[in-house]
Amino acid sequence: MTSKAIHSKSLQVEDHGIARIEPPNWWVGFKKNDLQLLIQHPNISDAVPSVSYLGVSIKKVHKADSPNYLFIDLLIDKTAKSGKFSISFKRVDKDDLVCIYELKSRKKPSENYIGFNSSDAIYLITPDRFANGDPDNDIIEGLNEKIIDRSDNSARHGGDIRGIINHLDYIEDLGFTAIWSCPLLINDMYQGSYHGYAMTDFYKIDPRFGTLDDYKELALSMSQKGMKLIMDQVVNHCGLEHWWMKDLPFKDWINHQRSYEEGIDSGSLKATIITSHRRTTNQDFYASEYDKKGMSEGWFVSSMPDLNQRNAFMAKYTIQNSIWWIETMQLGGIRQDTYSYPDKGFMRYWAGEIMHEYPSFSIVGEEWTINPLIISYWQNDHQNRDGYNSNLKSPMDFALQDQIVRGLNQEESFSTGLIDLYKGLANDFAYAKPEDLLVFADNHDMSRIFTQLREDVVNTKMAMGYILVLPRIPQVYYGTEILMSDSSIPGDHGLIRSDFPGGWEGDEVNAFTGEGLMDAQKDMQLYLKKLLNYRKNSQAIHKGKTVHFVPENGIYVLFRIFGDETVVCILNKNEDDFLLDLTRFAEIELKGKAVRNIITGYEFFWGDNFTLKERGSMVLTTKK
Amino acid sequence: MTSKAIHSKSLQVEDHGIARIEPPNWWVGFKKNDLQLLIQHPNISDAVPSVSYLGVSIKKVHKADSPNYLFIDLLIDKTAKSGKFSISFKRVDKDDLVCIYELKSRKKPSENYIGFNSSDAIYLITPDRFANGDPDNDIIEGLNEKIIDRSDNSARHGGDIRGIINHLDYIEDLGFTAIWSCPLLINDMYQGSYHGYAMTDFYKIDPRFGTLDDYKELALSMSQKGMKLIMDQVVNHCGLEHWWMKDLPFKDWINHQRSYEEGIDSGSLKATIITSHRRTTNQDFYASEYDKKGMSEGWFVSSMPDLNQRNAFMAKYTIQNSIWWIETMQLGGIRQDTYSYPDKGFMRYWAGEIMHEYPSFSIVGEEWTINPLIISYWQNDHQNRDGYNSNLKSPMDFALQDQIVRGLNQEESFSTGLIDLYKGLANDFAYAKPEDLLVFADNHDMSRIFTQLREDVVNTKMAMGYILVLPRIPQVYYGTEILMSDSSIPGDHGLIRSDFPGGWEGDEVNAFTGEGLMDAQKDMQLYLKKLLNYRKNSQAIHKGKTVHFVPENGIYVLFRIFGDETVVCILNKNEDDFLLDLTRFAEIELKGKAVRNIITGYEFFWGDNFTLKERGSMVLTTKK
Repeated sequence: MTSKAIHSKSLQVEDHGIARIEPPNWWVGFKKNDLQLLIQHPNISDAVPSVSYLGVSIKKVHKADSPNYLFIDLLIDKTAKSGKFSISFKRVDKDDLVCIYELKSRKKPSENYIGFNSSDAIYLITPDRFANGDPDNDIIEGLNEKIIDRSDNSARHGGDIRGIINHLDYIEDLGFTAIWSCPLLINDMYQGSYHGYAMTDFYKIDPRFGTLDDYKELALSMSQKGMKLIMDQVVNHCGLEHWWMKDLPFKDWINHQRSYEEGIDSGSLKATIITSHRRTTNQDFYASEYDKKGMSEGWFVSSMPDLNQRNAFMAKYTIQNSIWWIETMQLGGIRQDTYSYPDKGFMRYWAGEIMHEYPSFSIVGEEWTINPLIISYWQNDHQNRDGYNSNLKSPMDFALQDQIVRGLNQEESFSTGLIDLYKGLANDFAYAKPEDLLVFADNHDMSRIFTQLREDVVNTKMAMGYILVLPRIPQVYYGTEILMSDSSIPGDHGLIRSDFPGGWEGDEVNAFTGEGLMDAQKDMQLYLKKLLNYRKNSQAIHKGKTVHFVPENGIYVLFRIFGDETVVCILNKNEDDFLLDLTRFAEIELKGKAVRNIITGYEFFWGDNFTLKERGSMVLTTKK
Repeated sequence: MTSKAIHSKSLQVEDHGIARIEPPNWWVGFKKNDLQLLIQHPNISDAVPSVSYLGVSIKKVHKADSPNYLFIDLLIDKTAKSGKFSISFKRVDKDDLVCIYELKSRKKPSENYIGFNSSDAIYLITPDRFANGDPDNDIIEGLNEKIIDRSDNSARHGGDIRGIINHLDYIEDLGFTAIWSCPLLINDMYQGSYHGYAMTDFYKIDPRFGTLDDYKELALSMSQKGMKLIMDQVVNHCGLEHWWMKDLPFKDWINHQRSYEEGIDSGSLKATIITSHRRTTNQDFYASEYDKKGMSEGWFVSSMPDLNQRNAFMAKYTIQNSIWWIETMQLGGIRQDTYSYPDKGFMRYWAGEIMHEYPSFSIVGEEWTINPLIISYWQNDHQNRDGYNSNLKSPMDFALQDQIVRGLNQEESFSTGLIDLYKGLANDFAYAKPEDLLVFADNHDMSRIFTQLREDVVNTKMAMGYILVLPRIPQVYYGTEILMSDSSIPGDHGLIRSDFPGGWEGDEVNAFTGEGLMDAQKDMQLYLKKLLNYRKNSQAIHKGKTVHFVPENGIYVLFRIFGDETVVCILNKNEDDFLLDLTRFAEIELKGKAVRNIITGYEFFWGDNFTLKERGSMVLTTKK
């Protein structure tokens, strides 16, 4: 009763215009009862804040190095109810400032945030390049990058959240159960901002992609379809045009801050120091302190200031930002960029705080290495000699991706070809949970799989067929279903992230409807659709036992088994008829059982042998 | 007193000629009090054995499948004293057989068997090719291979144990503290037996190498010099001419025994089944049973029957054989061949039994893989997900060897060149004990390092300099000190194992005396001698902290630090003068200290920089 009275009072207080308060709101009912507010306002450091709301109290107020910031530690105890309340700032010789802050009710308990897992298949989208659902937001007055030019691979093309919403049915029909979109937060940079990784405000959707409401609508629509939304976040760096770069709260808010500020003064940013990219310093027992700093504290590129997470306020800011988005969007996962670049102690803390609040949540971290030792190091619960436990569920499996491409491209021999795939997967013994690794044929930073496989359609199908039956979480980059390529300039980022045909009004080809697609593209689309839709309900693929056989005669056979369901993946490099001896697989106990080809629907009984008619992949199931 | 009386009596009994009893003797005072004797004699299975010796009793007698074997489990309790006693075999309708068996006193307690470790440097010798100390034993009447032909790379050349004994001073002067000789046990095969890995009697020295007494003399001479003798053992297979192949004790004494015996009957051995060599099945959680057997039960080559260690009698036989040699030769280590080919459960048991008896002993196992996941799996105390703990102290580091060669051969770039060495060593974070790994530039099964490095003398010096300062146990193959090569037919086994010049009377070149060596060879010999002799007493190298810096500008700098001693290894790929900035290494705290070049003796004070004059390796020390 008392609290209600206070609520009413709070609501009557008007916001007197604090320039910035972050997070912009919070919730009641978290496991942790603390919240640190960043207050930005001219000369706010001299003000004395106070709150009067049942269950909410100020624990501590911190001044920053800049007079224009205050950090307020709030305690929100179990008695606090959702509602709005005022925070007053008493100032000497000036009027008090008052702002309204809201504690919301949570829509669902933490336990119900189920992150992506091996039952999912993830569609990865570069939002600027997928579909332009709202041409009205293509150019936004007042932003630094003012042009839109589809003929320029590094310019904005106009794709947006509305484009994704409009084509959700397409993605769902293909059989995907989750979407990871590259960042949607504002990148108010002067150029090359379309990719989204140079954020200039961690609480704001880029208006060229849409609004916060659009993003919420996407989340809701996906949730209604039972799909999971994965947000691409970046804690390592921001964009050089981030709002705080003009007035950094602390002297150590970013790494190499002094060099940066001296650069500003001298009119040159050359003094900023770029990371060595020597990521092994994260693990290496012998790495020098010099090299550890050179890696972790260096900037990723000169346009992206490197955030200093060893500053406790920055650390809290970042963690709260992640939680704010999880809670606001009811996320089904986070993809964390450049996972190995921030301070690794902080990364454990960041992931730990999230997983503590949301025990069934999922985070996938980008560490681009083909060294399984390093991939395994980063996965939660791996036994590391240095005692590091990352709290990271899903490292990316760049190692297996590399093996798949190499093995498919190379001629068959005792030590090359399909044996590379086999040996790549055999390394799973070293992972704490291989089924939680993210596997992919390509992504937004590497050549399209069709290009990597030298535009060999059959090999591309083999790669995709294999990936989709593995004990992994598969991720497919938009456009792989229609064999998009960057073969004209392999590895060109803009080309890799080409526009999805049909995403723009007037496109001659429309991959959503199939109009204008070549046969091979339609065939690939259908192939993936059948596999993905089978995968959606396949317990054998989601959690079955895996058994594979040493490739022989250019043929690699892998089984996934759960109860009555056995899925068989056969990769065959023989162009001509090959009589496959099945007695070698006797231990799988399929003899006499009916199996069905998931793609063609053809059924037959598993006997002593059968003839493979052509090079390619075959996925069979015992399921009716 | 009583026991003495029995001794006297025993000694009076004569050996009535049991064909074979193995082990040929045993010792009192082991931790384990059991001993299993293999008795071979025509129709011995019907006999009833008995012993009468204080503290010794028969626990159980086992018949085999062949009537010509008995296995007797003896209990040797703590009261048993060393001495000889008789074992009687009572037979129906025949005279009793009596044989004399000896229990010896141990020369030193188990704890005093100190195996090789990172304070050692091992010289690897192929004994047939090192030095012919006794021309009289070159051809032995009655053995299957009858020729000696130095012009034939796969024939015997006459090298022997006496040859090693004669040149112990040379090896010691070079600075080595241990010798691993390829097998010295008899290989009474018809051809290609010089390498020693096709043993035909696990208790007999090959008479072409010398006698058991010669081997004991070698061991004693080495022990007097404080050097460690490492015996090359093989538990995976024997030679096809092994004595037991004509009358196998059990139906499952070897793998694929039925195929072998059917092959014998049909006059063809084609039915024997060769291993798949797919060693990843040892680790792979997904490996099929079919493939596991195909790997583990297959024969290494058709002339080497694969021993079945899942037969408990074979398992015991092998373990006792290893212990017999340790105890007889006072070994300083075992090198175990083809470590990943026998049943891996047995290998854990075998190594465990040895390490249980000799807790400070050392075993190095050959697993030829460049995958550090697999190397780490095999090392004792590595946290394996399947719970496997190998009891193996020293796997071989083929991975680092590969990185060293690749990195030295390749041009410098961001991702090639010295960075390969750096990244290879950075993987040490994943090993339970990297300092226990055996590192090497080459061995008897791969191209000579000089050939691998395209006969680049400077790169060869860099490889060797690097290897000798690493936190590892270094092994150097005989002849590397004089740049021996197999460049005319790279990889040819016979050529790799060329005769060491000076090992044969009349050799025009004598590498022991230096006579006839080219300058580059003398230079390399001296280079290794200086490094090895420094290493001998360098605590920094034996057990110091390691710090290395990311290679820059074609220069890689690594430090080993222990107390006041700092060793600096600089690998430099620049042909021209390069001014090396030393301020980058400030954390090592060398500034102002005197450092000495171990090779040239040149001393200088560590300042802010110094000029590297030429491509090559430099090893510096702060030690006076």
